[in-house]
Amino acid sequence: MSIINHQILLASRPQGEASVDNFKLVESPVPTLDQLADGQVLVRHHYLSLDPYMRGRMNDSKSYAEPHALGTVMMGGTVGEVLLSKHPKFVPGDMVLGMGGWQEYAVVDANVRGVMLHKVDTTHIPLSAYLGSVGMPGVTAWYGLNKIIQPKAGETVVVSAASGAVGSVVGQLAKAQGCRVVGVAGGPDKCRYVVDELGFDACVDYKAHPDPRAFYKALKEATPEGIDGYFENVGGMILDAVMLRMNAFGRMAMCGMIAGYNGEPMPLQNPALILVNRLKVEGFIVSEHTEVWPEATLTLGTMVATGQLKFRESVAQGIKSAPEAFLGLLKGHNFGKQLVKLI
Amino acid sequence: MSIINHQILLASRPQGEASVDNFKLVESPVPTLDQLADGQVLVRHHYLSLDPYMRGRMNDSKSYAEPHALGTVMMGGTVGEVLLSKHPKFVPGDMVLGMGGWQEYAVVDANVRGVMLHKVDTTHIPLSAYLGSVGMPGVTAWYGLNKIIQPKAGETVVVSAASGAVGSVVGQLAKAQGCRVVGVAGGPDKCRYVVDELGFDACVDYKAHPDPRAFYKALKEATPEGIDGYFENVGGMILDAVMLRMNAFGRMAMCGMIAGYNGEPMPLQNPALILVNRLKVEGFIVSEHTEVWPEATLTLGTMVATGQLKFRESVAQGIKSAPEAFLGLLKGHNFGKQLVKLI
Repeated sequence: MSIINHQILLASRPQGEASVDNFKLVESPVPTLDQLADGQVLVRHHYLSLDPYMRGRMNDSKSYAEPHALGTVMMGGTVGEVLLSKHPKFVPGDMVLGMGGWQEYAVVDANVRGVMLHKVDTTHIPLSAYLGSVGMPGVTAWYGLNKIIQPKAGETVVVSAASGAVGSVVGQLAKAQGCRVVGVAGGPDKCRYVVDELGFDACVDYKAHPDPRAFYKALKEATPEGIDGYFENVGGMILDAVMLRMNAFGRMAMCGMIAGYNGEPMPLQNPALILVNRLKVEGFIVSEHTEVWPEATLTLGTMVATGQLKFRESVAQGIKSAPEAFLGLLKGHNFGKQLVKLI
Repeated sequence: MSIINHQILLASRPQGEASVDNFKLVESPVPTLDQLADGQVLVRHHYLSLDPYMRGRMNDSKSYAEPHALGTVMMGGTVGEVLLSKHPKFVPGDMVLGMGGWQEYAVVDANVRGVMLHKVDTTHIPLSAYLGSVGMPGVTAWYGLNKIIQPKAGETVVVSAASGAVGSVVGQLAKAQGCRVVGVAGGPDKCRYVVDELGFDACVDYKAHPDPRAFYKALKEATPEGIDGYFENVGGMILDAVMLRMNAFGRMAMCGMIAGYNGEPMPLQNPALILVNRLKVEGFIVSEHTEVWPEATLTLGTMVATGQLKFRESVAQGIKSAPEAFLGLLKGHNFGKQLVKLI
């Protein structure tokens, strides 16, 4: 009797907000060893990563990546265990990081150029961290902070979605570099966590200040010397308020604009401030900077292994929970890195 | 009988649009040699430079420079001749570039740190060019193009206010570097000049397309391969349209936002494109980059002297014409570098 692989496909494109109807659960058999081709590896996924960028891929619009094909398994980062291998570099029992997608098992053509499958060492680092602080979100934080913001000790760095997988790393790295670090997060629990657990100097609760002027006032109080570096994960009202607090020669790393994923207009109110304050505003996508991966993951891995870099996870159970968990992530219902546990 | 110096003061701050009432003409006596202190030089101005940045200085708002003090002579670049000197480096007859302001004569404390007074060589370069292509506007163009946009041959570079003192240099420099160069200018005469005289590949007349969609369509036709570099002198509708045409990894040098000087809101419609297309958007002010001046002016001066860099001037006559000429500049009535001839 063959094992069943549960998979989630992109069934349709969202009109405005994404919904569970955009996804479809299907089943397929898991292949046996003699059904694998040379170079193929069968991986059983332990964790699936859910990330905001996936929402952008669901749209059929010009973006940095091709739109996700309809009727195919939702793409996504995964960690798991090699069960079967016809590739000389992998043996059953290896723990691996890959892009296995929203499914319980994946057959990976490990020889094909561009297909990612890396062995990971879980001696000192938990497996799930390779999807978070020591994975793509962590490297994203590292890149935007060190390559774009390039903060100097004593400067003020602000990060939105501060309790999230990326934001939490940005703040802790900046703090370790001697900066004053201010987070923006939604709700008192997240703000407390960011300050008390992660060691940020302050955190502004945007949900407590839905009016733009009130939010600006709270941000101003938290940044008495202005803002030198901003790591953007959100866009909208928060970006506008931050722009008004930027110091001369400030740097803004544009990593995410989650506020605009549903297609609503999200203008920047005062772009002339880019000139007035001689700002540098730069968008980036970490997957285009693989050259920094070794340096970044060495730093991040060491900090996680030694307890210097803390993180928190929201873990949904079972592949069927992925769509709801993903929609919750887009609304900020997660607290820390959003994962789906599959085993 | 002493000589009279006619001066124009900033009399009041504009409420919205600037008007002639914001300026005041006054007279003062020109000092004699024994009235000069040690280190002072008396310069008779031949030309006064009028530049858009002056409008920003008239406001009492936070900007990159202190607001211009009320009741003092309007600041501005000038070229002229040394009449009297109590400074060992200057003798009567020297032609000099300085920041003499809106007046016919200036007493310059040439020893005081931060006060600019440079001898200029008019053998092969016309005196007025030191206020234009070989002066601050030229270096502004050089800096934004070479330090921010950094164009590669074959890329498409767009510049707004293309027939102006800065834009005309941006386009000609980019063209000399092998780029496809597209200007944006107001009216058929300016567009023809930009293409026929300055050698741009195309020019889009924004006055012929007041509707944003029509302007976008015209810009799209002129940039079939998208835009890799944009030199911004204007802001508003033009910036929004350009943003939609930017290629991945495009660079935008934010030099001027003349459309917003009167205080009207000027939002950027789609800042998420900075992320989607991994753009670098950077504001700059040339006076903060004096280190490039020697290299830039050597290139620009050589190109002007050899006829490779063409320019055009709008020349108003007499100090009393300065306010009207300045207000016209803000509305795009000038054609090329706006000067006031004082002698």
